[in-house]
Amino acid sequence: MARISIYDSTLRDGAQAQGISYSVEDKLKIVERLDALGIRYIEAGNPGSNPKDLDFFARAGALELKHARLIAFGATRKVGIAVEKDANVQSLLQAGTAAIAIFGKSWDYQVAEILRTTPAENLAMIGDTIRHLKQHGKEVVFDAEHFFDGYKANADYALQTLAAAIDAGADSIVLCDTNGGSFPEEIFDITRKVCARFPNAVVGIHCHNDSEMAVANSIRAVQAGATQVQGTINGLGERCGNANLCSIIPNLQLKLGHECIPADAMRHLTSTARAISEIANVVHNEKAPYVGGHAFAHKGGMHIDAVVKNPVSYEHVDPEAVGNSRRVLMSEVAGRSTLLARINAVDPTLSKDSPETRRIMDKLKELEHEGYQFEAAESSFELVVRKMLGRYTPFFELVEFKVIVSEPTVNEVNSSVIIKVRVGDQEVLTVAEGDGPVNALDRAARKALERLYPALGEIRLTDYKVRVLDSDKASAAKVRVLIESTDGRESWTTIGVSTDIINASWQALVDAMEYKLMRDQEAKRVA
Amino acid sequence: MARISIYDSTLRDGAQAQGISYSVEDKLKIVERLDALGIRYIEAGNPGSNPKDLDFFARAGALELKHARLIAFGATRKVGIAVEKDANVQSLLQAGTAAIAIFGKSWDYQVAEILRTTPAENLAMIGDTIRHLKQHGKEVVFDAEHFFDGYKANADYALQTLAAAIDAGADSIVLCDTNGGSFPEEIFDITRKVCARFPNAVVGIHCHNDSEMAVANSIRAVQAGATQVQGTINGLGERCGNANLCSIIPNLQLKLGHECIPADAMRHLTSTARAISEIANVVHNEKAPYVGGHAFAHKGGMHIDAVVKNPVSYEHVDPEAVGNSRRVLMSEVAGRSTLLARINAVDPTLSKDSPETRRIMDKLKELEHEGYQFEAAESSFELVVRKMLGRYTPFFELVEFKVIVSEPTVNEVNSSVIIKVRVGDQEVLTVAEGDGPVNALDRAARKALERLYPALGEIRLTDYKVRVLDSDKASAAKVRVLIESTDGRESWTTIGVSTDIINASWQALVDAMEYKLMRDQEAKRVA
Repeated sequence: MARISIYDSTLRDGAQAQGISYSVEDKLKIVERLDALGIRYIEAGNPGSNPKDLDFFARAGALELKHARLIAFGATRKVGIAVEKDANVQSLLQAGTAAIAIFGKSWDYQVAEILRTTPAENLAMIGDTIRHLKQHGKEVVFDAEHFFDGYKANADYALQTLAAAIDAGADSIVLCDTNGGSFPEEIFDITRKVCARFPNAVVGIHCHNDSEMAVANSIRAVQAGATQVQGTINGLGERCGNANLCSIIPNLQLKLGHECIPADAMRHLTSTARAISEIANVVHNEKAPYVGGHAFAHKGGMHIDAVVKNPVSYEHVDPEAVGNSRRVLMSEVAGRSTLLARINAVDPTLSKDSPETRRIMDKLKELEHEGYQFEAAESSFELVVRKMLGRYTPFFELVEFKVIVSEPTVNEVNSSVIIKVRVGDQEVLTVAEGDGPVNALDRAARKALERLYPALGEIRLTDYKVRVLDSDKASAAKVRVLIESTDGRESWTTIGVSTDIINASWQALVDAMEYKLMRDQEAKRVA
Repeated sequence: MARISIYDSTLRDGAQAQGISYSVEDKLKIVERLDALGIRYIEAGNPGSNPKDLDFFARAGALELKHARLIAFGATRKVGIAVEKDANVQSLLQAGTAAIAIFGKSWDYQVAEILRTTPAENLAMIGDTIRHLKQHGKEVVFDAEHFFDGYKANADYALQTLAAAIDAGADSIVLCDTNGGSFPEEIFDITRKVCARFPNAVVGIHCHNDSEMAVANSIRAVQAGATQVQGTINGLGERCGNANLCSIIPNLQLKLGHECIPADAMRHLTSTARAISEIANVVHNEKAPYVGGHAFAHKGGMHIDAVVKNPVSYEHVDPEAVGNSRRVLMSEVAGRSTLLARINAVDPTLSKDSPETRRIMDKLKELEHEGYQFEAAESSFELVVRKMLGRYTPFFELVEFKVIVSEPTVNEVNSSVIIKVRVGDQEVLTVAEGDGPVNALDRAARKALERLYPALGEIRLTDYKVRVLDSDKASAAKVRVLIESTDGRESWTTIGVSTDIINASWQALVDAMEYKLMRDQEAKRVA
């Protein structure tokens, strides 16, 4: 079976999804996750339309990636402009990636109506741009926008656009179902014809989910000869989303035998999908095939008996294969081996059968049931493990606080916090103001503690995210707060869960401070 | 093109989804919605496993349905029991429906392992049950459970189970991909063989979405000769859900020319899908093809220019055809034409050169600079436009509020809000508690206003999101709050931005209430 190159566009086409807006930090974290999963290509930004992507590419270039090549994405040169003078093409080169994807029109109707130019000029735009990039030593991916609609309207012209790209040296040509309206058999037939017409070309497929068939369409294209598959994690993307790599990868690899990612990376699929939902700050789709929390959940009593008798009765694949787990009861913890690895980071002597391990698993189950999710908050998880193992002494204790927020605001300071903390037998009472209750709380806590722990002055909060867990309970729903902190050397993420955003924020702030103090203490011990 | 009988199981297989639990009233409302949409069969309950379904069937029998036949669903008789004595079969007859669906095993492995009986007894169970129901004058649908897995394991036996059903008088035989693991081409090939083997049978298809291909699989089965398609509205169902009729119906009818529902009912598809999400009390999937709020939403500036020039550029069908609508989103990359489209929704007389348009553009730029982002908060944007055009009178005014949050928490209620609002010349002072400051604030505001505006009681907050805008400013960074609300008919999203999460939440809450009141006022004006 052909090896398939997986081409991820979570950071580029995925960013077109409603409500998605990545910070540079978010993007770097996602790149690391995708690389660890063994993704071949990561289309990470469009520096021509978004100048801040250049900053990202500068920083991403410093990452040591094991599997992935970063790709900068942009359009062909504009109508009637020399490619050397095209600002967009220049910015693609400035991104400094080894590979570049450019998209061009392949539908004659769009050339006339949208570009308002001639078919010949469009072919020249494709050819010129690719030749220019090849002269700069780049690997070039050509995305043939609207290819299937174009082919249906004027097959000859659509094929000419591919020929122009291949003649100019494109390393792969990608057939795009841009509007997402095509059917599996159309995709199969047209892809097969393209592969027959260009037998030496690397052919890719790029589908959208507007007819809810993007996964099937991608699979059919592979069956017709495509060897590069574009998509996004969790199917993030404009409108109904892009083809969902979390379904395509296991469909191709586990069921059809095409290698897409390293075999031992497959069991990280679920945790990667979840982590990316968290980083993108979107609700993870629990109904998602393979990686959703319900994907292997069994409700009907009859089903459960059958599943217990033999899982093949009601499961199409082994959930462990994709790092997910069967849920026959209300709560079930995922990825025991992952967990054990983290527990061993604190105490290497523990095995999966140690009573301590079991106690931690039970505690974790309980916390997850309450809404904690440690996927993106490993520092808080480490604190939980240390506490459970008796390897932790808190640095301070809260006696009480009172937060007061008033509206209308006077001088932008509308929040005051009175706080009392205890360190050893010493109690400190203090007050601080802020422009918002979390800010006031953060200031008050540090003001109370900084004299005793000057290192807290080094902490800077770099991100603060809030999610509602139980949305049908309106504003009384539980919220999950994730706080990312840095001291300039290291960064760490902590979590809090509560019906009260102040309380949840407080938990995460406390963990952030405790984690910092613990790390410093450890560093001293080692030194 | 063959007419396709749509067979809905939202009330039966859909009820297996996690978190779904219908009341009898819910079920009756859903039946009426499905009938109005022109669905042919409504599988509405399993009286053998759920006795309260008999109550439902008694009441449903009184409904005057125009298009639909109700179906009671259950198993074949049990192993070794005479069909007349089988309590489950009796309860199916008691349901009093004209049509009954029974499921039986078609995988020899399951006959041995799960039923623990002989292949011959399983065939007798199928035949006896169907003959008995036919003797009572029922239309009988036979669901061949695990048919595709069974066929792959032992084609001959799987076909024997269908023959047993047909010989006993089954009106249709339905091929089930119970585990959802099959691929489109397997479904096509096997369905085609079944149709060839039983040329006079009505063949149906029943798919699950565990490989994210249930829609494509259903379409492929129709292309192979199936004329009955089972599924659920919004793809509700166990694990990853059943085949989604909201995608299958327009795919078959608008794209392949198969009549599934009356042509004039198609434009009720979106409102039916939304209503059923509300009745089932699940968050409507806004990314859903055809019926989601994002299905025809356009974000990138380039795309939007093209969509305005000609919708076929980036839309695979006309959104109006399924009762949905085009949405043009605001974003950093959105062009001026986007904005104008939104402004024209409020005042169609304004052009891109009108001074009002310019003022709104400037205001928008200023607000975006402050961190507002209207792409996902169109309702707040509409309020801004109305205010700028002098087409808006606020329904109420905040005089002041004070929020007090204390830790440690007593009885889970740690927040109190004192609020004073003004409506006309009337001032209302009130206080409310909550488990969190936003919850307390929401309660206090409604308590103060609900006597004057009872419609506010209909609002339910369905999502609450917070993002930090300027992460390097730590907890004093600005936060952006997005609140999604619904009144059961419509849903809308509003925004607030502030350094203070309470203040930002307050802005979004106010917009949510104002928007609701404004829409109600407009509806009255039109009526």
